[in-house]
Amino acid sequence: MKNAVGREIPAAAAGYGQVAAFAGAFQTTQPLRRYAPLMKQARPGDDKVLDNLAEVFKRIPVKDGMTLSFHHHFRNGDGVLNQVLAVAASLGRRNLNIMISSIFPVHAPLIDHIRSGVVGGLDTNYISGPVGKALSQGVLANPVIMRTHGGRARAIEAGQAHVDVAFIAAPACDRYGNVSGTMGPAACGSLGYAMPDAEYADHVVAVTDYLVDYPLAPVSIPQTRVDYVVAVEKIGDPKGIVSGTTTITKDPVGLKIAQSAAQVIAASGLLKEGFSFQTGAGGASLAAADYMARIMERRGISGSFAMGGITGYLVNMLDRGLFKRIIDVQDFDLEAVKSLATNPNHLEVSAGYYANPFNSGCVVNMLDTVILGATEIDTDFNVNVTTGSDGIIMGGSGGHSDAAAGAKMTIIVANLLRGRLPILLDKVLTVTTPGETVDVLVTEHGVAVNPRRAELASRLKDSGLPVRDVHDLKMLAEKMAGVPVAPTFDGRIVGLVEYRDGTVIDVVRQAGG
Amino acid sequence: MKNAVGREIPAAAAGYGQVAAFAGAFQTTQPLRRYAPLMKQARPGDDKVLDNLAEVFKRIPVKDGMTLSFHHHFRNGDGVLNQVLAVAASLGRRNLNIMISSIFPVHAPLIDHIRSGVVGGLDTNYISGPVGKALSQGVLANPVIMRTHGGRARAIEAGQAHVDVAFIAAPACDRYGNVSGTMGPAACGSLGYAMPDAEYADHVVAVTDYLVDYPLAPVSIPQTRVDYVVAVEKIGDPKGIVSGTTTITKDPVGLKIAQSAAQVIAASGLLKEGFSFQTGAGGASLAAADYMARIMERRGISGSFAMGGITGYLVNMLDRGLFKRIIDVQDFDLEAVKSLATNPNHLEVSAGYYANPFNSGCVVNMLDTVILGATEIDTDFNVNVTTGSDGIIMGGSGGHSDAAAGAKMTIIVANLLRGRLPILLDKVLTVTTPGETVDVLVTEHGVAVNPRRAELASRLKDSGLPVRDVHDLKMLAEKMAGVPVAPTFDGRIVGLVEYRDGTVIDVVRQAGG
Repeated sequence: MKNAVGREIPAAAAGYGQVAAFAGAFQTTQPLRRYAPLMKQARPGDDKVLDNLAEVFKRIPVKDGMTLSFHHHFRNGDGVLNQVLAVAASLGRRNLNIMISSIFPVHAPLIDHIRSGVVGGLDTNYISGPVGKALSQGVLANPVIMRTHGGRARAIEAGQAHVDVAFIAAPACDRYGNVSGTMGPAACGSLGYAMPDAEYADHVVAVTDYLVDYPLAPVSIPQTRVDYVVAVEKIGDPKGIVSGTTTITKDPVGLKIAQSAAQVIAASGLLKEGFSFQTGAGGASLAAADYMARIMERRGISGSFAMGGITGYLVNMLDRGLFKRIIDVQDFDLEAVKSLATNPNHLEVSAGYYANPFNSGCVVNMLDTVILGATEIDTDFNVNVTTGSDGIIMGGSGGHSDAAAGAKMTIIVANLLRGRLPILLDKVLTVTTPGETVDVLVTEHGVAVNPRRAELASRLKDSGLPVRDVHDLKMLAEKMAGVPVAPTFDGRIVGLVEYRDGTVIDVVRQAGG
Repeated sequence: MKNAVGREIPAAAAGYGQVAAFAGAFQTTQPLRRYAPLMKQARPGDDKVLDNLAEVFKRIPVKDGMTLSFHHHFRNGDGVLNQVLAVAASLGRRNLNIMISSIFPVHAPLIDHIRSGVVGGLDTNYISGPVGKALSQGVLANPVIMRTHGGRARAIEAGQAHVDVAFIAAPACDRYGNVSGTMGPAACGSLGYAMPDAEYADHVVAVTDYLVDYPLAPVSIPQTRVDYVVAVEKIGDPKGIVSGTTTITKDPVGLKIAQSAAQVIAASGLLKEGFSFQTGAGGASLAAADYMARIMERRGISGSFAMGGITGYLVNMLDRGLFKRIIDVQDFDLEAVKSLATNPNHLEVSAGYYANPFNSGCVVNMLDTVILGATEIDTDFNVNVTTGSDGIIMGGSGGHSDAAAGAKMTIIVANLLRGRLPILLDKVLTVTTPGETVDVLVTEHGVAVNPRRAELASRLKDSGLPVRDVHDLKMLAEKMAGVPVAPTFDGRIVGLVEYRDGTVIDVVRQAGG
């Protein structure tokens, strides 16, 4: 069957069940109830601290085929997934389903665990590094399920993705299971992506290398949801967790695009008192935020909140009063971690609060604008951030689709050519984010506005921005670089791209190499 | 049938269903799952603000027989319950079940709503004032359900008490439903008792008189759980909310008891580094805390946390470093509200975190000692704080049974005679808290230790405390005041006293007058 963005999707998939077709960004409404996890009965004097992970596996017990969940706040410094899977392998567990909010190069051992049968399923929102390549080459029998950050929260909350055991990588933890992300040698700041897991898993394990006196404060994940505490030598590598190297781009093309994006915001009519904003931590996004900050200062505008992967740049904007609050589901550098720990206007929130479309109102719904990237974009404004032009999985939505759906104006910033390839196509290889939720494409060769937003196009033109028809921009790219050959992949389905509402917006097929 | 404290209880009760008999403080374990409330689907641009409460009733819609829940942080200054019930009456709603964490004299209009049929059921943890008297006289056809603070959280979380609509009295609220208790004209501090309601009700309404810009911070109850926001002229009377008059007793008998209680703690072996403590806001409890603080300072001891109804006295102990944290489910004065708003070591927690016995560990489990009061206590150490000696409902457990069950040592402070009546009896009229969870009775005529705690009795004797057999103390009381005539009530059951685990520990029968 074909879905609303014209993609052929299967009626069902192994390890997933029935597939619901994407029908439009706000078209699928389901009468859902929250999952009802087990209630526990803790008594005074019970001790939650176990000696090691193997002991946890025996006490729960962790059985073949169970779903174990993990979060990605440690990014490429995570040590918990690999340690837990090593224990699972040593105990002979088979066919585990691994639900982790994002996968990084450090998680390469996953590939061997898949090959050996320890891991039989994978469910994630973003993949960078060798695991993506191995999945694209078909290492896993069942397709990997790729969700959005908000969609993962929805799936867990609704029990559509049932978590048997959540492993919380805990930068700081007390003996009764209160967890914080802002202290300890592996401090990572917000633990927002772990919160749905802790709330809805049947069993919750905090893994820490920094046990503190009871009661820990502030509490990100509460003792009421944590069943076991395990101290290990090291839960992660701080160098991979907070890099401190996220800086504004120096590339002149990137700076030009960033400046145009800021001008689009300035001309949009949205940049007024109470303005709200999300951006990523990439060099071009930070440059755009910087240009925008200067405009806000010039106009004397104070925004309501900023979101995104939080860096020192956003913290600096909070400290200068350009925004009243930072809403934080993940931190990217030490300034952000420090700000979260000390500034009461810097708020830690859950993935559900951030972006779950099926609660009483997530915060992306309150966004005025978001600046996002694209690997590919097409003339329908559909965006691919999931696969490269070679068909290999090298990303995923993360919060891309969520923020695009929520914001009043979604801006995609991208070089019209990447290397020698146009990024603006007739059809993206994989649809991650539907074009109906994307409003403006900003390139170094001009700005294209989604035809659905005629009024916005007029505003931008009136402000002197180089607004061009998206087809004209595409032809320009092809004039410079030639018409790219659209690759076709007809191998079996190795990935399901799930939209935030639980429908499937596209599939990823096996790629060669 | 007779339960584990020898009370005759029915097999079932109208408006309640099957009755489970109390079997001992930690004997009843049930395989429970959490209630699964409706998930919502909020879209960007949706507006949650409605014009008035009548509009809320129509939008949900609120139907006859539904359960509406409320919280008691405004105590005798609450204006929300009365306003909501006035609207229900004006719209002709019938047979509503009202679940409110405590009832105060200001809620007297409930009586008329019961008489007129608008209200058909009542579920609460504590009742002071005319409503208790009316209930004891039989105004309600079905028995009032009386729970503990932790038991109410358990019942809501497990769906044993299903809440259709939770009304959150919101001292401050933004248009998207984020609620805080520390700001606004009706600031009350912690909103801990409202948190289970917000989390598990099918519909959640924030009622406020202080709408602030989005996004409000800090957030006590999140936008993700709030469906509607209603601004009214006034949600409560600050004079009834935070009195500021909670002061240490000046009564010499009260001071003597308080001093003895502090000496019991000092002699117990529990008063060491990391000590944890709960007390109420009564004058004698505060006096005991004050004596204890002096001992801690003399010994150079720093405690881990203090809990209870929070007052300036506990805040002062936090500020002096006598405790590292305050864990706060309810505030009693403005110093406490201010401290919660500004001190990161003053933590707001939910009723479930405080005392729900059926999660992965509530904080009462971590208590070293608690000082509690008693209307009556018997030679089995069972305590009555539910009814007066005339059988009229004038209190209830609140957190009494919860803290007693959790703490390593539970101390009851009470005058041996109240007026001309002994408070130490063969059998209390109503069992609120089972004797197995009570360790020490401190009176002005000596200290009695529960025979289950022989080792503690030795310690206290060795420290020179006037330890007496509880039967001797009872005889002394009778020698001074005569043997009280045990009243008997054989009218119909007007109240069910539910223990924190959901079993019934006693009933209240109709009283004359």
